[in-house]
Formats: sequence, C-alpha cells, structure tokens
Amino acid sequence: MTLPLKDRFALPEGVIYLDGNSLGPLPRGVDDRVSRMITDEWGAHLIKGWNVDDWMAQPIRVGNRISRIVGAADDSIALGDTLSIKVYQALAAALDMRPDRRVILSDSGNFPSDLYMAEGLIGLLGDSYELRIVAPDAVEDAMTPDVAVAMLTQVDYRTGRMHDMDAITQAAHAAGAVMLWDLAHSAGAVPVDLAGAGCEFAVGCTYKYLNGGPGAPAFIYVRPDLIDVARPALSGWLGHDAPFAFERSYRPATGIERMRVGTPPVMGLAALECALEVWVDVEMNDIRAASLHLSETFIAEVETRCPELRLVSPRNGSERGSQVSFAHEHGYAVMQALIARDVIGDFRAPDTMRFGFAPLYLDEDDVHRAVAILADVLGGRLWDRPVFRKTTRVT
Amino acid sequence: MTLPLKDRFALPEGVIYLDGNSLGPLPRGVDDRVSRMITDEWGAHLIKGWNVDDWMAQPIRVGNRISRIVGAADDSIALGDTLSIKVYQALAAALDMRPDRRVILSDSGNFPSDLYMAEGLIGLLGDSYELRIVAPDAVEDAMTPDVAVAMLTQVDYRTGRMHDMDAITQAAHAAGAVMLWDLAHSAGAVPVDLAGAGCEFAVGCTYKYLNGGPGAPAFIYVRPDLIDVARPALSGWLGHDAPFAFERSYRPATGIERMRVGTPPVMGLAALECALEVWVDVEMNDIRAASLHLSETFIAEVETRCPELRLVSPRNGSERGSQVSFAHEHGYAVMQALIARDVIGDFRAPDTMRFGFAPLYLDEDDVHRAVAILADVLGGRLWDRPVFRKTTRVT
Repeated sequence: MTLPLKDRFALPEGVIYLDGNSLGPLPRGVDDRVSRMITDEWGAHLIKGWNVDDWMAQPIRVGNRISRIVGAADDSIALGDTLSIKVYQALAAALDMRPDRRVILSDSGNFPSDLYMAEGLIGLLGDSYELRIVAPDAVEDAMTPDVAVAMLTQVDYRTGRMHDMDAITQAAHAAGAVMLWDLAHSAGAVPVDLAGAGCEFAVGCTYKYLNGGPGAPAFIYVRPDLIDVARPALSGWLGHDAPFAFERSYRPATGIERMRVGTPPVMGLAALECALEVWVDVEMNDIRAASLHLSETFIAEVETRCPELRLVSPRNGSERGSQVSFAHEHGYAVMQALIARDVIGDFRAPDTMRFGFAPLYLDEDDVHRAVAILADVLGGRLWDRPVFRKTTRVT
Repeated sequence: MTLPLKDRFALPEGVIYLDGNSLGPLPRGVDDRVSRMITDEWGAHLIKGWNVDDWMAQPIRVGNRISRIVGAADDSIALGDTLSIKVYQALAAALDMRPDRRVILSDSGNFPSDLYMAEGLIGLLGDSYELRIVAPDAVEDAMTPDVAVAMLTQVDYRTGRMHDMDAITQAAHAAGAVMLWDLAHSAGAVPVDLAGAGCEFAVGCTYKYLNGGPGAPAFIYVRPDLIDVARPALSGWLGHDAPFAFERSYRPATGIERMRVGTPPVMGLAALECALEVWVDVEMNDIRAASLHLSETFIAEVETRCPELRLVSPRNGSERGSQVSFAHEHGYAVMQALIARDVIGDFRAPDTMRFGFAPLYLDEDDVHRAVAILADVLGGRLWDRPVFRKTTRVT
C-alpha cells in the first residue's frame, strides 16, 4: 500500500489539512454507512436492531479494529463514552489496584482534562490522595514508592513531544506503580505496542488520527491478565455480567465488557467502524516513516523560509509524535490568515501554532505548498488585519 | 395539532410499534440532517465546524428543546454521555450537598443501572455510605433524617407504575434530603414539571419517547438556583470555566455548562436535535390524554379477549406512565410470536410483556389491531414453537 491514500477521504478541493491531530477528515463511505444505519437498521428494524444488526456487540467489535493499530490483543479494548470518562474509569480502577498508595503522578504536558478528571476523582476519594504534576522530563525520576498510578499522555498536545512508552512503563513498574497511558495523539499517529510495553491501562480518542468524526466514542484498554480483576467504578448496566437479568446488585462482566457503562452510541460507532476500514491494509511503521519525512521536510523548509517562527517541538524525530509546533508572538492571527488561505492547522494559547501530519491523506507536495503559503502570510504580514486578530475561535 | 402525527415518522409499513418505551422510531428528516452534518459540516468545514456550525453550543441548545418537554427553565439542562453517567454525576453532586448524611435512598423499581452506578460511587466514597432500597410504595415513609439523596426513577421500567413527583419531592425536602429524578420513562411520555416539583436534579435518556436513536445522548437537569454550587465530580474540560485556556486546575463553568464533561457527540446530537423538532407544536397534556385513552383501550380489550394475561401495571391511569405490562408464564415466547406478526413490544424477565403507547405515532386502530393479533397468538398457541422459545434476544 503506497501512502498517501487520498482517495479514501472526502477532503475539500484545495484544502491542505494539517489539523488531523485535532479532528480527522471525513473518510469516504462514512456518510453512506451512517445513512444505512439510520434508515435500514434503526428505521426498518427498530428495537430489533439490537439483535439483527448486532448493535450490542459494536463496542468490542470496533475495539478489535483499534487493537491492531495500538498493538493490543483482541478483546482488550472497549469503546464508549468520552476520553475524559475513560480516563476517570481507568484511573479509578488503577488506584484500586494499589490501595496502600495515594499519589497519582502526571506531568505538565498532560492534556488538562486528564488532570481535571483526576482532581474530580480525588474529590470523592478524599484528601489523603494527591495529584502530583512534574515536568515531562522529570517523570522517570519522580517514580517514588508512594506513586500508585502514573498517568501520562504519550504525545504532548501542544508540542508533539513524545514520551518513551517502554522506558517510562518500566520505571513505573520498577517503582511498583500502575501505568496508564493516554493515546489521544498516538493512536493512528505513531506505532504503539501496548502489549509489548506491558502497561496496565490505556485510553484514547478516535476523532483525531482515527478519523471517527467530531465527538466520536473513546476507548479503554486493560492488560488482558488484569481485565477480570479491574474493578469498574463506573459500574453501568452494560458492564454487568448479565445486563438483561436486571439483578439488583452489580456483578462485573467477565472480560473487557466490564469496562462498558451505558447504552452504546450506535450511530457514532457505525461511523467509526466505517472510518477504521481505512486502516485494514495500512502498517503503522509505514505511517511513521512517512510522518517523519513530512514533518522533517516541514521543519527544514519553515526554518529556512520563516525565520521569525520558533520550533517548539523536539527537533529529534524519535522524541516527537506526528505533529510539529511553531511559536509566533501573533500565532493566533497567523493561523487565522493561514486558514483563510486553506492551510488548516490550529492554535493553542499563548503562542503555539500546531501542524499535524497524517500520511493517510498528505504528501510532500502538500507540505511544500503549505510552507509557501505560510512564508507568504508571514512575509507579507497578511495576518496583521483585524479580521484575523479577533480571538473568538473556540478550538 | 391533532394526534397522532404518523407522517413525522418513518415507520415500516404494517408494523404496530409498541416499544417506543425502549427505542423510539426514526423521525423523518433525521437521515438528511445527519447526512448534512457529515458531508456539509464535518466533511466540508473540518475543524472549523466547531465554530461555523456551532457544534460547541449543541449540548445546551438541545437541552433547551428538552426543557420545554420536562417543565424546566432555559439553560438548566445539558446533553451528553449516557444516562448511567448522568446518574453518577447528579448523585455525586447531590451527596456533596449533604456532607453530614450517608444514605442514598432508592426503590426496587428503579432501573438497575441507577443502583449499580450508586454502588460504584459508594465504592469510591467508602463504606460509611449506604444504598438503601425500599419498595416503591414505602419510599415516602423511608425519608428519614439520615437520607442524603432520594434517587428514583419516576416511571417503573417493568410495570409502568408512576411515582407522584410532587409528593415525593416534598417528602424528601421535608426530611432535608436532595431529590434526584430519573426521567427515562417520563420525558416525552407524561407531563413533567421539574420547576414546579422543585427537585434539585433530574436525568434522562433521549432514545425512548424522545426518539433520538439508539444510544442517543442523555441529559442532566440542575435546579437553576443550585447550578453554580453543584460540584462536578466528573470534572471534564468542557465543564471548565475556560476550556480553551488549558489551565492546570479545574474551575467549574458558571451555568449548566459545568455539567458537560468531554467532547460532545456531534453526530448523535444532530440526530437528536432534528428528532426533537417533532415536538415543537405538541403539548404534553394532549400526549397524556391520548396516551391514557390508548392504554385504557388496550387494557380493557386485552382483559376481555386474553384472560390468560395478568395486568402488572397499575389499573389507575394516574399511577401509570405511558406503558402497560402484562404477565404470562411464557411471556418471552408470546412476545416473539407477536413480533413475528409485526406487533412489536418487548419482554422483561421473568414474565413481563411491555407495551408502550406513544401517541405521536399510534392511534386507536393500532390498538385494536394489536389486541386482535395478541388474541390470535394466545388463542392459537402460536407462541408455542421452538423458534419463539429460544432466549437469545438481548433487549
């Protein structure tokens, strides 16, 4: 399979889309698949859809498509809810495995919602628990014997800095801590080998590099040997061993089903399942090689042609995910001007412009053209107009 | 507006659908609306959809459509997640309002997932907390001064028995307890006046009488005067006061936005928003009058023509929601045989057949025909075939 596979995506003509790290583009076929789900399944089969269209099996079936992309065994991933909820669920189960410890270790590069969910959980568990946040490069040294769980996002949402999953997981285990990885910017972006890393938990979203659509369902992974001992704090009926027996007390299901909570979002899962068909013949190592090539081409050209920008991503490709970030004092306005020219990236306060490189639908020519337009916008100070400097943009 | 409004739904020819209490049918227009969201919003606008298509405002905008149906003020309902998650969120916030009390009071008619979620929450809060479950008719007497929260589903999912929301809320308040109502079988089924009842919290799902589709997003209501003191335990970034400032610590948003958690399910919300257009010119009092007429016609005819069935719903309409349940020793097989004849209801173990009456798309003739077919199935023992007696059905 030769990358890119542009014909698998319905990208608007003329757009160079460098924001798949925030929201992936529409894969062809999703519209038809969802339309069939709506009219031929829900509309025609009504309640029978749960059986005849196998809606009830979706969360694990779709999980098995993601397993291949993140190096997990079959039946170790369940889909559903949002990533924030999945973080909470994994974190609660992880803490439960270290009842004598009280520290959740994270880093300042983690996505804020992960930290917020940990705060919320601690609010219930009580003040003896602590969320300890260190700098990303201090994580390994911070694996002290009081750490119950290390909760980290592998790839930094601002800078693209990537943690060494194997090394940090080993450090966590050496300290007796449980390891929880957030793969929001990893799944479909870089090769991930969950089974090889040996981490206990992982979570991720599917609307970035997996192209599931805005607000697509999230996933949770539990290491297979721990699935049947992981205690679900979000003990919803579809994680029950016999959901349709309607027993009065919760008994967790055998298997990864126990990480399900409520009724699955059938429409969103249908869209995602179709979006994941893009990946069937794609190897993550090929994606990685192409991503590094595109990213390094971008960095080299931007540094040559746009000296007013400052690289805030690691220069070393092995320390970077699939995004490149550059800072500029007026980064927000520059990005707005770029978007007006159909080069779509995004901005994170205070000054960071993010550019995601998804080799499924980007090639080297896109990179050359994007840099040419960026150089134009900067050289001509095209960003310095009131229309680009308003900050009403929400994402 | 004269009920029913059958032309607003894409019901399969010949089907009499008596299972809207489990999954509402497809409203016309939803397929087109979702298709537009996929191709014209996500596909064409990509990440810009969050702004130009106002995806970020969906959860409260759609909440305001539901407010009207359940008697709530504007901006007191947020959409998102599943009902189980919303139960957890409301329950945690409710317990936080009574820190000196330790009892969650519920009843044996509550939907099991609500009880399971309470168990999970107690698992985090510690053994000093208690989930106390009494019989439905013992709830008012059980409002003792140790009750922190009374958590009840208004309409019983098995029997259709309906609690008196005003009386029980008053009893809860007289005992100093916080009142949390689950409206799963109420919203769109019976007139609900949350503002009048004065309960602190309510939650509900949107895939039953509101016809949002399988796994459609759930909702949470907080009484307006309490919104800004309700502490979110599921403190996700979209409930933060400034989600895109990416601060390190959680600060709840002002307003009902604080009950949001993660990225909204845009596709599911688009479907739901369209499905709710059915309701713009519908009055819940008209729905209620028609529902009682259909239900009572059904009960009277079934009792005349099918004496082997035993009514398990309250006979008094004022004590019943919009569903009627009958028991039969071989209820599962009888329901399968009925479904084979295109009369669709459902079954709940051990012996209960449920029939939902949604006056939006059902009329008296449907009821007559349904009873005639039911009488046929019973009279001819058509259910007594192996194909109907297998119990592989999941819902």
